Amino acid sequence: MSTLTRMDWLEQVKWDRDGLVPVIAQEVGSNDVLMFAFMNREALARTVESGQAVYWSRSRNRLWHKGEVSGHYQKVAEIRIDCDNDVLLLKVAQLGHAAHESSIACHTGRHSCFYRRLDAGCWEAVDPVLKDPESIYG
Amino acid sequence: MSTLTRMDWLEQVKWDRDGLVPVIAQEVGSNDVLMFAFMNREALARTVESGQAVYWSRSRNRLWHKGEVSGHYQKVAEIRIDCDNDVLLLKVAQLGHAAHESSIACHTGRHSCFYRRLDAGCWEAVDPVLKDPESIYG
Repeated sequence: MSTLTRMDWLEQVKWDRDGLVPVIAQEVGSNDVLMFAFMNREALARTVESGQAVYWSRSRNRLWHKGEVSGHYQKVAEIRIDCDNDVLLLKVAQLGHAAHESSIACHTGRHSCFYRRLDAGCWEAVDPVLKDPESIYG
Repeated sequence: MSTLTRMDWLEQVKWDRDGLVPVIAQEVGSNDVLMFAFMNREALARTVESGQAVYWSRSRNRLWHKGEVSGHYQKVAEIRIDCDNDVLLLKVAQLGHAAHESSIACHTGRHSCFYRRLDAGCWEAVDPVLKDPESIYG
């Protein structure tokens, strides 16, 4: 198989004007949406190669191997693409916690980044902090 | 309560350079990710007001009341925002199907827009078409 053929799946992604694609990370089992991030071609290629989520950090402008500091790696179970070829859905096992603990994907120490809900005109935090972020990143 | 105070939650969203925010629609109950779209301020305000998902269609450049043609409306159960204030998660009941049928969110007549999975270097369709799109949109 030629290199070109092997990389067709990478070119079939509709990369945006910045060479990025939005990615939704969903937890295998619970089906909870954990976080939302972006990938460029290299991040997606490395994710597929390594079996762990590698994103593109827009704020730091570099590849971001999720968990590289926190230890909260994501093991990829499957990668899906949407009908327009411009969004990816990663089904992941969220690592970095003991078997009896809830998983932590958010840098605030919460399970999911989507911990605030619109209630009576306010974004209210409705999910608990599971671990002090200072003990994760300190 | 002044109008300004009432709309604070709308201004707390970090709108992108096009005045949009990405939105993940997730099905209540199954927790399946159904689709990904965008909203502008008006779409979000109308969603909250009406209790049904209203998106901003980037291809048609207009408000898009999901289901306006297909009948596949989305009843909003809750709206969440992520830790960076720049992504929304809508938990919805996907309407437009009989009680015994699987719900359809995708314009291809499938349950979810994320029906293709990366398998051995190919994006393979792994979820069935539940209804002929021509009978939905014809």
